[in-house]
Amino acid sequence: MATADNIKELFKLNNIKRQIRIGIIGAGRIGKIHADNLLRLQQAEVVAVSDLFAGPELEEWAVARGIQSIMKDSGAIIANPDIDAVFICASTDTHVPLIKQAALAGKHIFCEKPISMDIRQTEEAVEAARQAGVMLQIGFNRRFDHNFKRIREHVQSGTIGEPHVIKITSRDPNPPHPDYIKVSGGIFMDMMIHDFDMARYVSGSEIEEVYAQGNVLINPVFAEYGDVDTAIVTLKFENGALGVIDNSRQAAYGYDQRMEVFGSKGNVAVANDHPNTAEISTAAGVYKDNPLHFFLERYNEAYIEETQLFIDCILNGKPVPVDGQDGLQAERTALAAKLSMRLKRPVKVSEVLQLAEQYSAFL
Amino acid sequence: MATADNIKELFKLNNIKRQIRIGIIGAGRIGKIHADNLLRLQQAEVVAVSDLFAGPELEEWAVARGIQSIMKDSGAIIANPDIDAVFICASTDTHVPLIKQAALAGKHIFCEKPISMDIRQTEEAVEAARQAGVMLQIGFNRRFDHNFKRIREHVQSGTIGEPHVIKITSRDPNPPHPDYIKVSGGIFMDMMIHDFDMARYVSGSEIEEVYAQGNVLINPVFAEYGDVDTAIVTLKFENGALGVIDNSRQAAYGYDQRMEVFGSKGNVAVANDHPNTAEISTAAGVYKDNPLHFFLERYNEAYIEETQLFIDCILNGKPVPVDGQDGLQAERTALAAKLSMRLKRPVKVSEVLQLAEQYSAFL
Amino acid sequence: MATADNIKELFKLNNIKRQIRIGIIGAGRIGKIHADNLLRLQQAEVVAVSDLFAGPELEEWAVARGIQSIMKDSGAIIANPDIDAVFICASTDTHVPLIKQAALAGKHIFCEKPISMDIRQTEEAVEAARQAGVMLQIGFNRRFDHNFKRIREHVQSGTIGEPHVIKITSRDPNPPHPDYIKVSGGIFMDMMIHDFDMARYVSGSEIEEVYAQGNVLINPVFAEYGDVDTAIVTLKFENGALGVIDNSRQAAYGYDQRMEVFGSKGNVAVANDHPNTAEISTAAGVYKDNPLHFFLERYNEAYIEETQLFIDCILNGKPVPVDGQDGLQAERTALAAKLSMRLKRPVKVSEVLQLAEQYSAFL
Amino acid sequence: MATADNIKELFKLNNIKRQIRIGIIGAGRIGKIHADNLLRLQQAEVVAVSDLFAGPELEEWAVARGIQSIMKDSGAIIANPDIDAVFICASTDTHVPLIKQAALAGKHIFCEKPISMDIRQTEEAVEAARQAGVMLQIGFNRRFDHNFKRIREHVQSGTIGEPHVIKITSRDPNPPHPDYIKVSGGIFMDMMIHDFDMARYVSGSEIEEVYAQGNVLINPVFAEYGDVDTAIVTLKFENGALGVIDNSRQAAYGYDQRMEVFGSKGNVAVANDHPNTAEISTAAGVYKDNPLHFFLERYNEAYIEETQLFIDCILNGKPVPVDGQDGLQAERTALAAKLSMRLKRPVKVSEVLQLAEQYSAFL
Repeated sequence: MATADNIKELFKLNNIKRQIRIGIIGAGRIGKIHADNLLRLQQAEVVAVSDLFAGPELEEWAVARGIQSIMKDSGAIIANPDIDAVFICASTDTHVPLIKQAALAGKHIFCEKPISMDIRQTEEAVEAARQAGVMLQIGFNRRFDHNFKRIREHVQSGTIGEPHVIKITSRDPNPPHPDYIKVSGGIFMDMMIHDFDMARYVSGSEIEEVYAQGNVLINPVFAEYGDVDTAIVTLKFENGALGVIDNSRQAAYGYDQRMEVFGSKGNVAVANDHPNTAEISTAAGVYKDNPLHFFLERYNEAYIEETQLFIDCILNGKPVPVDGQDGLQAERTALAAKLSMRLKRPVKVSEVLQLAEQYSAFL
Repeated sequence: MATADNIKELFKLNNIKRQIRIGIIGAGRIGKIHADNLLRLQQAEVVAVSDLFAGPELEEWAVARGIQSIMKDSGAIIANPDIDAVFICASTDTHVPLIKQAALAGKHIFCEKPISMDIRQTEEAVEAARQAGVMLQIGFNRRFDHNFKRIREHVQSGTIGEPHVIKITSRDPNPPHPDYIKVSGGIFMDMMIHDFDMARYVSGSEIEEVYAQGNVLINPVFAEYGDVDTAIVTLKFENGALGVIDNSRQAAYGYDQRMEVFGSKGNVAVANDHPNTAEISTAAGVYKDNPLHFFLERYNEAYIEETQLFIDCILNGKPVPVDGQDGLQAERTALAAKLSMRLKRPVKVSEVLQLAEQYSAFL
Repeated sequence: MATADNIKELFKLNNIKRQIRIGIIGAGRIGKIHADNLLRLQQAEVVAVSDLFAGPELEEWAVARGIQSIMKDSGAIIANPDIDAVFICASTDTHVPLIKQAALAGKHIFCEKPISMDIRQTEEAVEAARQAGVMLQIGFNRRFDHNFKRIREHVQSGTIGEPHVIKITSRDPNPPHPDYIKVSGGIFMDMMIHDFDMARYVSGSEIEEVYAQGNVLINPVFAEYGDVDTAIVTLKFENGALGVIDNSRQAAYGYDQRMEVFGSKGNVAVANDHPNTAEISTAAGVYKDNPLHFFLERYNEAYIEETQLFIDCILNGKPVPVDGQDGLQAERTALAAKLSMRLKRPVKVSEVLQLAEQYSAFL
Repeated sequence: MATADNIKELFKLNNIKRQIRIGIIGAGRIGKIHADNLLRLQQAEVVAVSDLFAGPELEEWAVARGIQSIMKDSGAIIANPDIDAVFICASTDTHVPLIKQAALAGKHIFCEKPISMDIRQTEEAVEAARQAGVMLQIGFNRRFDHNFKRIREHVQSGTIGEPHVIKITSRDPNPPHPDYIKVSGGIFMDMMIHDFDMARYVSGSEIEEVYAQGNVLINPVFAEYGDVDTAIVTLKFENGALGVIDNSRQAAYGYDQRMEVFGSKGNVAVANDHPNTAEISTAAGVYKDNPLHFFLERYNEAYIEETQLFIDCILNGKPVPVDGQDGLQAERTALAAKLSMRLKRPVKVSEVLQLAEQYSAFL
């Protein structure tokens, strides 16, 4: 929740020198969100945006925000010596080459999830950033959600003792467009990857093994691309805890994002956020409005906070809150889930590389 | 919730002829509960109680209730031609022989769960009752809980569309005594068996396959008996739905009994029952009292209802609401979970008999 | 919530000698409730019931409960030397003479609220019981409700500090029959009298002054009898706290019974009881079932507890939990509210007798 | 809740011409809030800020926001022909002369509540704006709160039928500084004035009469200034509905802002907003975090929306959502409450002017 004090901070900006100059690569929905959130920050300036489909509409969007440089090719952004950091928001297949180029050019990097769908390549990209000494933050925005942060705080402070069971429910209001499903990497790499990261984040432990089940219950189009629309994955953590994540591509009542951690001393659970607290009682029963519709509404504040922290880390030389290893580990887990569902057996996160090679034909 | 109208019904009893005469075999905690609930019913009379450890204390208990016959041996109950039905509440290992004897004697049978821990024997017992033409009801009391019934009603009426994901959480306030753990049959047969039955009940579909994970996180004594205290089992239903059950033997905040069914048109979820609705707000936060402590409090009304229905079915020749096949199916599923955890792979409910023979050594 | 342990206690009964023999005067809805609740008690026996309209239906009701003596005239109950205590559940206008007669006859008395609508007469009745040395308990059943008891506990234990503001909402699902409205004594004496008693009970302080507003918003029939169907009364307590009660004769969603006490260290609030905890989420929103329908459902346990305590007080010579002074004080407050609404000014509880004489014409 | 789409709108700003040029008079807490919210708007520009205590700190604050003109005297703002509208956020005693001056100078006016504590003067100010043909919006920010708007929507759409009872609870986390209490105008004019406006807003009806009770329960300093810290006011509306507002200057658990409207077809109630939905269950009970701390957090979005709407009304020549008559009516009601508490009788809103003259000595 942005407080008035935050806003004062955010707005200390418009007419004073901004210290970090940003280029945004990929101006789809998420790229534009990041741009808007960066515009709120005193220390950041969005100086250029590239998008393969840049045209009059994007120009207008940029002009309204005082962003002066719009282009189709990301190359000029990476080559621009005045740019300190890039936000990689283009399609997933471009992430690895862009990270490598940006790292070589000495730019700090914020990259959307997943880095790639090929663990080897993701490893190379993460290594490239490491060798170049640039910061690489991955866009796991949910770590900055007010509800999930509160879970983690209670786990870390010991309120609920040692974690025993981690449960995550994540359901979208509507499935993505079939064109997107085709290239999405599947439900585990595209959607549940957030939950794998959250499971690590809230539990404070690594996932050791997964067992995945999935089915096509919403739309047969998922089957056409070898994907599922409904999935449950159980987790075994290194510290002995167990976990379960359930995903659905379509919840009639909107975006459903809940989580709980049960431990030796108690349980902490978070419910959905609703647009208001109104409770209406009539002869028909007691009802309230559905949860906030989708991720833009629910994670609005989280998106703002992740960009603030990225800029802050650059300015103050602090390690980013979600780094390349986090991205890599979530991808490995997603791949393990994919393999588990195909092989119909539990799969260890540590064996994914080997299995991926063995079963590359069907992945 | 017993309404005053119910109570009027319940009490129409004491001085008029009771039509169904009952013998209770095993007067531990649950046997006594059933006796007390039967005493509320106009149409039932508890005429005899047997318990291996019958003594002055049980005599006193019986006298206070006007139960005139107390004995150690269950044989006299089964041989008594005046007794119409028996409640089998003795230890699990006695269930099968008692069912067979009672069936031969033409008594209707209410048997606590599980019937046995050996599927073959359970099958024999169920078959014996079928051949004798007596009613056999299994003590899955949770089917009569006000919350879970409401879930089933909403699933059946189509409010939430086709079920996609069934989720059940069941946590006890305290682990049982080690002596009990030893003979309990393990977490799946002793505790999660209720949840397997509930999964069938609320989903309206059979469980096809399970995958079980478990760990010892609460007390090493469970490991001594080859048992676990924390478990997660994922389910695949015949209708394509997926499910997950998580169990813990110890929740610091008390008895945790929640469930939800997510479907194509929505979700229905039930929370715990609390002893009151008081919400206290102080400088330290907003708090409320913990859930109803344990099964006696939470399922008080459900226990009453299951005995009412059993008597009603006998009187009116209606099929019992939870029959031998229900008992058998829950046991098969529990065994599948046990096998799955040992074999570290998903197990089909249909293959348990064969696997049980193959792996009998370690079961 | 009746626990299984309670039930064991309750049922220790049927075939052993009961110590307290009861006569019930008036077998309408509430008289029957008390009878049924007394039947649950080991130490009580309902030996006679009188009702002006006694007939075959009541006979049948009594036979089913083993109550052997049914009559039209209450005289025989009061004259019966074998009867230890009477429950006065007849119409309000009979309460005072019945209390006087029963007191003279040395019977302990449980009397429904209000004792009468004439303070002087109520005073006489209370005094008669006092002089005769018999117990007189008034039927303010809500004092025994699980939610309201929890409020009082938190006020008494100091959790919320010194009480500053007491708020009570009480709304019925449906207005009473016009025939009843006519003789009800009006909303303050018939309905809000419960809330005046609760205000004293939860605050631990006497009401000093009231200011009442009312209106006819539901049904013009209330106006015909000089009554209102919607009312708000503000309270000033002797300890300086303030309070407010709002009543409505008709809430579309059922019985609405809420309360909160705000104090120097916090707030304790209770919500309604619902028949289950199911929350259904669909495209139309999130809904749950309405509250328990009416007082029989909501206060079922409270009715049981008030009779248990009455019997217990007789057996053990303890002061009753709600005595004649409590009944008197609630009536005085109700009268003060009635006068306040008519006089359009605040009225002190201490001045009601004088004002009642002065304005007797319109009361 | 600011959605990402809103933010895009909000930020279309920084480098394009702003159409409405604003001067802010009074740069205390609330003046600064408005400035920051105006900075988010594309169509508005804050060009000057005046404050009696302007100094280096305010200069720094202004520089960080690109506000170029800072002064002590508000005269230069009103005289500035480039300024289209003023926000009057100085102390209440300055409001009337400033409104008159600004109106004469043809500026649109946003004025904080109350306009003044003298109804005659407020009338003059409102009339001055009317005659000058400038817009005058009053700062009743709560009308734009997501919860309260939802109540009004349900009342207006008829979901709950005809309103019968309106209930508002408003409690501050801490009392104001004694220096402020002295000049605050008292609890009714300073604090409950918001609730009087809300009562009109959500009910859609005028308040006809009030009866006020108050006491000093928190801090004797209130008594020193003839004020109270705890108050309950009952309301009679022109449409026959009844209402009640309770205020406290200090709630241990933070800012408590709740409301409900009960009507012929149902009830709509809103609860507090909390910083997260986390529910923690331990052996000590179930708890959650306290509500959002105070008005800056709770009404953050409402403050943003009221300035957006003001600018929008100016740009599009639409009537402002809260006008001078709204300000006046709330003040009349507050005065009626003050008189009622002093005179110990209900007071009609229509008689306040006459009574105020009659009792001017003690007001």
